[in-house]
Amino acid sequence: MTAAILAVGDELLAPGRVESNSVFLTAQLARYGIPVGFRAVVRDDAQVIAFSTESALKRNDLVFLTGGLGPTSDDLTREAVSSALGLELSLDETILDGIRARFERRGITMPEVNRCQAMVPKEATVLPNRRGTAPGLWIPVGSGQAVVLLPGPPLELEPMFRDHVAPRLNPFSSGMVYEVKKLKVAGLAESSVEQKIASRYRSVANPSTTILASAGQVEIRLTATGETSEAANAKNETLASSLREILGDAIFTENEEELEDVVGSLLASSGQRITVAESLTGGLIAERITDVSGSSRYFDESFVTYSNEAKSELLGVPKELFERVGAVSEEVASAMATGARERSGADIAVAVTGIAGPTGGSDRKPVGLVYIALATESGVQVERFQFPGARRQVKRWTSQAALNMVRLELLR
Amino acid sequence: MTAAILAVGDELLAPGRVESNSVFLTAQLARYGIPVGFRAVVRDDAQVIAFSTESALKRNDLVFLTGGLGPTSDDLTREAVSSALGLELSLDETILDGIRARFERRGITMPEVNRCQAMVPKEATVLPNRRGTAPGLWIPVGSGQAVVLLPGPPLELEPMFRDHVAPRLNPFSSGMVYEVKKLKVAGLAESSVEQKIASRYRSVANPSTTILASAGQVEIRLTATGETSEAANAKNETLASSLREILGDAIFTENEEELEDVVGSLLASSGQRITVAESLTGGLIAERITDVSGSSRYFDESFVTYSNEAKSELLGVPKELFERVGAVSEEVASAMATGARERSGADIAVAVTGIAGPTGGSDRKPVGLVYIALATESGVQVERFQFPGARRQVKRWTSQAALNMVRLELLR
Repeated sequence: MTAAILAVGDELLAPGRVESNSVFLTAQLARYGIPVGFRAVVRDDAQVIAFSTESALKRNDLVFLTGGLGPTSDDLTREAVSSALGLELSLDETILDGIRARFERRGITMPEVNRCQAMVPKEATVLPNRRGTAPGLWIPVGSGQAVVLLPGPPLELEPMFRDHVAPRLNPFSSGMVYEVKKLKVAGLAESSVEQKIASRYRSVANPSTTILASAGQVEIRLTATGETSEAANAKNETLASSLREILGDAIFTENEEELEDVVGSLLASSGQRITVAESLTGGLIAERITDVSGSSRYFDESFVTYSNEAKSELLGVPKELFERVGAVSEEVASAMATGARERSGADIAVAVTGIAGPTGGSDRKPVGLVYIALATESGVQVERFQFPGARRQVKRWTSQAALNMVRLELLR
Repeated sequence: MTAAILAVGDELLAPGRVESNSVFLTAQLARYGIPVGFRAVVRDDAQVIAFSTESALKRNDLVFLTGGLGPTSDDLTREAVSSALGLELSLDETILDGIRARFERRGITMPEVNRCQAMVPKEATVLPNRRGTAPGLWIPVGSGQAVVLLPGPPLELEPMFRDHVAPRLNPFSSGMVYEVKKLKVAGLAESSVEQKIASRYRSVANPSTTILASAGQVEIRLTATGETSEAANAKNETLASSLREILGDAIFTENEEELEDVVGSLLASSGQRITVAESLTGGLIAERITDVSGSSRYFDESFVTYSNEAKSELLGVPKELFERVGAVSEEVASAMATGARERSGADIAVAVTGIAGPTGGSDRKPVGLVYIALATESGVQVERFQFPGARRQVKRWTSQAALNMVRLELLR
């Protein structure tokens, strides 16, 4: 049991375009135990659409076509598929009324061209479109196959799939479903995560493990198959608990949340307030903290101090430090954190100073050198980092390392 | 003259995977005047690969297959294509020596399985692989068609395409090349841009026009074809100049730059310094300003004032305003901008206050309501906005509108 996905539209073959509906459909179908065996992007050409549909039906039980259901002359999917399957189209008055009503609500008379959207092959089930005029069609074929026509705009396709296609998929399921589990790690490099866990996951075939690294974050993704969702989840959990033993606190979440969400929850539950003093990140850390709804419970204010003068005036960093050790130094990071904590009255202050690049680096202080200081009631700690990458990556790495220092402090 | 691209590999059909080689190839082929007529992702199955190659050759002059050239048993592309075309494979000793040498340089004896990578159909031209063991193949078919086999890893495929495929494409060129021109607009909604320019671009078939909207930004993309790059560019320019007449200053760039880059250039050239006072955006505006390398020329410091107390203490906003008109008001925005400008000594201060949501809205002050104030030597101006979308969108819209107010002020 496999599915094929044919995305229809000249525009999808244009340079620079990425076809995304098939990515959505592949992920959804996996959840119902239906692997995708073939995927194609085809032109607005009735012959090609018909031929591709026929070919796909030879090797797949379910064939999805997306796009080409609009009212214009280059929307050919409905007719081409019906002709390939030898089905006649007839006007469905209920659909026509629906389309008319949709236009009338906007104060417009339905253009005649939209009539074609109400044409339906006799054997088909109409899939209602909450968000647009083009209904989808579920067309049974032969003994247990089906061709499914869905509108191209993702905002129309996605709810239609969830509401009207998903409930019909059971008979097509291979009986093997996928489940994905993610462990997100901060504070360790990809190579170091790999080294620590390789012996544990390499010997396991189900789940399969992939490791995705971005600036300051490593995501370990386990994909298990099983006869039921529970069986697949149990397989993921067995490997996950083995990885937890090794990685411990380095795993900051196993959910769909970001580091700032985790830090936010810890701050909210501890009743502590935070402030930030940012040089190279220019506001990114505060921006991430305030991306969390409800962050006003633990965040009042923060300081972006880019120049040396700003560090002295807003945070009270002694001017002689710039002469003696330079703005990118343990001492300045420490003074920034202490100053920010005192001036804001927050419980925790995190401060960052460093060289984001591409200019401003030197042999002794290269691009990517960053000091991060954390000031609390019990004192100040400073860590030195050397981050890789271009300006935006260095900023991102820095924000990630700073939030992770806060997280580990709050866990203590 | 069209090309088809077949990406081979079970892993490319797995959930979560996006196939990227065809995006690269489509863009490259467009530059040589070869439109792509069909694109597919196929399984590691010799029958499917052979059938898909034959089908593709019926409608396309050039058929690219990527992937499946490795040494393992699921690498089937070379054999499947040769059998589909009725070509015999024979061992190419030169390639074999090259593969052996590659292994020896790493101190390894070539595994026997790699021999298959040196098998070549007689009619084919070998495309050397600088980065891996799998050579590519250019196989002429019938009268003027060709099948091209390329390795799957982008790091191998891309240089091979540039060095060995591109020089052979001239005979396949339609003689028509594509050129793309972008006009990026800020400060106007998508519908308003559409309304203003529809009559100008709808009547023009070449270039074709697409409009892409994101929070606070509308990108008008013109794609022209012509016999030469110059001819296509000239067609884009003709429509672009017509659109410029209507949109004027709303177009902030026609290059690959962001609003913060444009604002940065204007600040640098005017010699003015900027500061920011941010409530709902929580640092995002400063973060964008400092994403620009060299921003220290015009940016010293900024203030993230989330709570009312912070607005009073750091910016001197009179406390009675919160009682009388509330934090989200013209008066508070104005006082924030004035305070930030005075305390920082900057020439321009931009301040934002609003409701990012999802909570905190009311009938009178709904989620998305934002006031933006701009303080300069000549006074303060405040604008009121009602932005759509979720928390992050509202923050993004706000940062975009704030930077655009600064841009328009600097243009005056």
